[in-house]
Order: sequence, then structure tokens, then C-alpha cells
Amino acid sequence: MKTFYIDKLAVVGVGLIGGSLALALKEAGVVGHVVGVGRGLPNLQTALRLGVVDSITQDLAEGVTDADVVFLATPVQSLGLVAKEAMPHLKPSAIITDGGSVKQAVIDAIEPHLRDDVHFVPGHPIAGTENSGAEAAFATLYRERRCILTPTERTADAAVESMRQMWQLVGSQVVIMPVEKHDRVLAAISHLPHMVAYALVNAVGAYDRYDENILEYSAGGFRDFTRIASSDPTMWRDIALTNRDALVEMMEQFETFFAELKEDVALGSDERLFEFFRRSKQSRDEIL
Amino acid sequence: MKTFYIDKLAVVGVGLIGGSLALALKEAGVVGHVVGVGRGLPNLQTALRLGVVDSITQDLAEGVTDADVVFLATPVQSLGLVAKEAMPHLKPSAIITDGGSVKQAVIDAIEPHLRDDVHFVPGHPIAGTENSGAEAAFATLYRERRCILTPTERTADAAVESMRQMWQLVGSQVVIMPVEKHDRVLAAISHLPHMVAYALVNAVGAYDRYDENILEYSAGGFRDFTRIASSDPTMWRDIALTNRDALVEMMEQFETFFAELKEDVALGSDERLFEFFRRSKQSRDEIL
Repeated sequence: MKTFYIDKLAVVGVGLIGGSLALALKEAGVVGHVVGVGRGLPNLQTALRLGVVDSITQDLAEGVTDADVVFLATPVQSLGLVAKEAMPHLKPSAIITDGGSVKQAVIDAIEPHLRDDVHFVPGHPIAGTENSGAEAAFATLYRERRCILTPTERTADAAVESMRQMWQLVGSQVVIMPVEKHDRVLAAISHLPHMVAYALVNAVGAYDRYDENILEYSAGGFRDFTRIASSDPTMWRDIALTNRDALVEMMEQFETFFAELKEDVALGSDERLFEFFRRSKQSRDEIL
Repeated sequence: MKTFYIDKLAVVGVGLIGGSLALALKEAGVVGHVVGVGRGLPNLQTALRLGVVDSITQDLAEGVTDADVVFLATPVQSLGLVAKEAMPHLKPSAIITDGGSVKQAVIDAIEPHLRDDVHFVPGHPIAGTENSGAEAAFATLYRERRCILTPTERTADAAVESMRQMWQLVGSQVVIMPVEKHDRVLAAISHLPHMVAYALVNAVGAYDRYDENILEYSAGGFRDFTRIASSDPTMWRDIALTNRDALVEMMEQFETFFAELKEDVALGSDERLFEFFRRSKQSRDEIL
């Protein structure tokens, strides 16, 4: 009998996503040493002080040396370059994986640099908060969350199986799906809602009919509703740029529904309005 | 010295809004007897059992007789008829007020029936949850919330002052503003966000490229974001119908911002996207 265990894990980018995986694997007792790799020394020192990682380095080559698993948790647009720079220093049979919110763009950026004796398992844990940095990390972030893996033709089955176990051990439900499906599903359930929230806050914030900030009248509903509009602008710029086609398709789908609703409001179509709201409430209540 | 006190309060419609005001006034010790008036006996019995009200009746005339304050908390579209039927039974100098989410339509529906010796103070406590019914009521709903009063030319100052005190005593910050401003501000910060949430859930729910319910992949962000799409369809149909002009104006403002964002995504305008998201995050963080 073999038991899942990672002797050395390198987490590149020790923020909410990377730090939480480190903490969760430590809590599960399935990792030996975790090295945190990053550019900013203050954040790395915070991670070390909080016990998120066991050692830190700003030297990527040093950090990934001898690592069994390298988890890339830097912004999506940086992943190709980070993988390229890490590649010569990986040990044979190392698994490189990531937590990027889009997958085709990440695969396109990483696979050209991939060594034949290194495994790449593209991954995306669907979890997060609007907070960032090492101090935002917590061990239970991934519990009862989906984690999607999108192996390519080059990904070995055994490496996929290892990553499946890793995510299951931190409490996630692992789903394996084609990369195109991942990018379209995420455009619908995550990227579109963020675009809607950002546009809503800007539209309301720009309403200048009165000489005061009308956002101050907003109650809990608006605050909850727009929480995701506080997410990191750099991260969301990258996601919007790297999942462009699927996102534009979903934005158009939303526009169609919103225009239909606006017309029903303008015409005072009471039965159609009730049905529109009823249908939405039903869908929403089903996922509670 | 006089102390604010309501000998008899009639709450017409003992749901979240009406029931919570009753509970809050009782907790503040500034009400003698609360009678709950409604059409549905089971909900009234629940209100009585939970101590939300002291007595119940399905007879509007009986309920409002001798009441110092009558709080109308039935759906917006019903307020005119309820006020009309209650009017002959109100005692002289009684104050009739309401909690409707739109104000001009309510004023237009109530004022034609108003007796000269009765005061009407249109009001709107900006508070709520997605739950409804007497069992959803709780005494702290209005704490640290805004309550907007929109007196008309016919509203006596003393009656406005009484209602200001009442809402302050349950913890609200009272703002008095012109009715047109109320309806436009609420269209922006509340009615528009609900339309956006309803349209979003329907757009994503209708995405049928895959033979499964992709909403099941959604994580906390989507669930929080769409919570308000679980609100009561009847209530929101009424709000959409009665605040039509202001709402359509805000929906158009939102469409303009969303179209701009979609174009920036389609064109891959990285600096414009970053600036759009940064501006939104800044506005959102300011109201935290």
C-alpha cells in the first residue's frame, strides 16, 4: 500500500490560492517541506511567520530544485514565463501544476517550454475570496469546492491521478474536463458575473444627478452583490484578456437577457416580468 | 418633557418589514399595543405566537380603529386600496405611513383618499433580506440602516417629526428627501442591481451548450452575488412596474457601461480594462 505524500512542494506565488493549498496540505499531513517562492520579500516573510511555508526564497531556480510538485499560483499572464524559467531546474518526473482561472491560454503559454521528463497538469480550484496575499490564506479554502483539471494530450494519466488525490486530500471535489469546456463554463459562472459587478458599480458610481455619493444609501443587498467588484484589477484584467472569446460570448448572452428585461419593464409587461423573476429565483434557489 | 410613545400601532402586512418594526418598537419600549392586520390567518397566527404582535385581525377596519400609527407594509401595488379602505376608520390625527420601496406611485395611490384630519408620511426603510413572512422578522433589522421619508406638500411637519423619531428609536438614520430623488436613487442602488442579478441568473441558467446544469460549478462568489435574485418575484414585479421611468433610465446607464466593457474585452484593451476594474474596486471599497 502506498500513501500519497509530497516530500517537497514549491509554491510559486504565496497568496490566497498558493498559501491556502500549502496550509491545507500541511493540515492533512501529506507534505514534508513547503518552500515559498516569490518576488516580494515582505509577503514571503509574512508567509514564513504565519507558518504558511517552511522556507522562502526569491530565487525561482533554487525554490523549485528537488521539488516533487511545483504549484504555480502567480497571475495568469505570468505563468508561461515562470514555467519557462523554472523548467531547467526541475527534477525528472516533477509535476508542475497551476491554479489559473483560465486554462487554454495557460496551456498555450506553458507547453512549448515543457521538458519531456516533466509533467504538467493544468488545474483550477474554484475557490477564492476578494482578499489576497499570504495573510489571506487559510487551510479550509478548498473544502467542498470543485477543482477542475484539464489534462492535455501530453499529460500522463499518473500525473493527473496524483493531482486528483492532492485536491481530494484538501477537501475538493475533482472534475476532469476538456479545456474548452472549462473556459466556457468559467466564463459563464465566474468571469461574466465579475464583469457585471464591475460594470454595475461603475454605472451607479457615475450617476451624478445629485451632488453626493448615492452609493452611501446602499444597504446590505448592494454590498453583498458588489463584493466581487472589489477583486484585484490586475487579476481580472488578465482573465478578461486570456479568456476573451468565451467571455465576449457570455457577455452577449447576458446583454440579450438584460435587453429583454428592460423592454418588459419599459412596456410594463407584468406577466412577463413576474415569469422572468420567478424563473430566476427558481434557478438560484436550486443551487443554494 | 414628553417622551415618544405609541399607544396603539396597527401593522398592516406582518411580514419581514412590518413585523420587524413591531419587534423593534417593542424592544425599545415605545409602543403599547400592536395589532397585526392581514389576509392570511396562518401568517397572523405565527406573528402572534412569536410575539411579533399582541393581537391579530383579518378585519382592516377593526385593526386600524383607535390606532395612533398605521404602518402599511403590504406589497406596493396594494397600498392605495388598503389606505382607501382603512381611511373611514382612522381616528382623527392618526398617522398613516408605509414602507414601500417606491414612493411617487404610492403617494399617487394614497393621497386622493386621504382625509384632511389624517396625516400621511411616505417612508422607506432601506433594509431587508431575501426572506419574507412573520417568521423572518427580527428586532434589529433597521439598526444602522437609512430610512428615507418623502413628505409631500400635504404632510404636516409634526407628523414627519414623529415618524423621524420612530425610525431613530429603532436605530435608523433618517433622511428626508424629495420623492423624485428617492425614486431615482433607489432605482440606482437597489432596483437596478436586482434587475442585473435576475438577468444574470437567467442568462447563465439558459446556457445550454453542455448537457448539465453548469450553475453547480459555481462557488461562493456567484452564490453571494446572485442572492438577491432569490427575492420575491411579486414584490419585484410591482417595484419594476411602479418605478418604471427611473428604472429604465438606470438600466440604460448600466447597458452603456457594460457595452463599453464588452468592447474593451473584445479588443483586448488592457489598460482600459485595468482602469475600469480599478475604478470599480475603489468605489466599492469606499462604501465598505
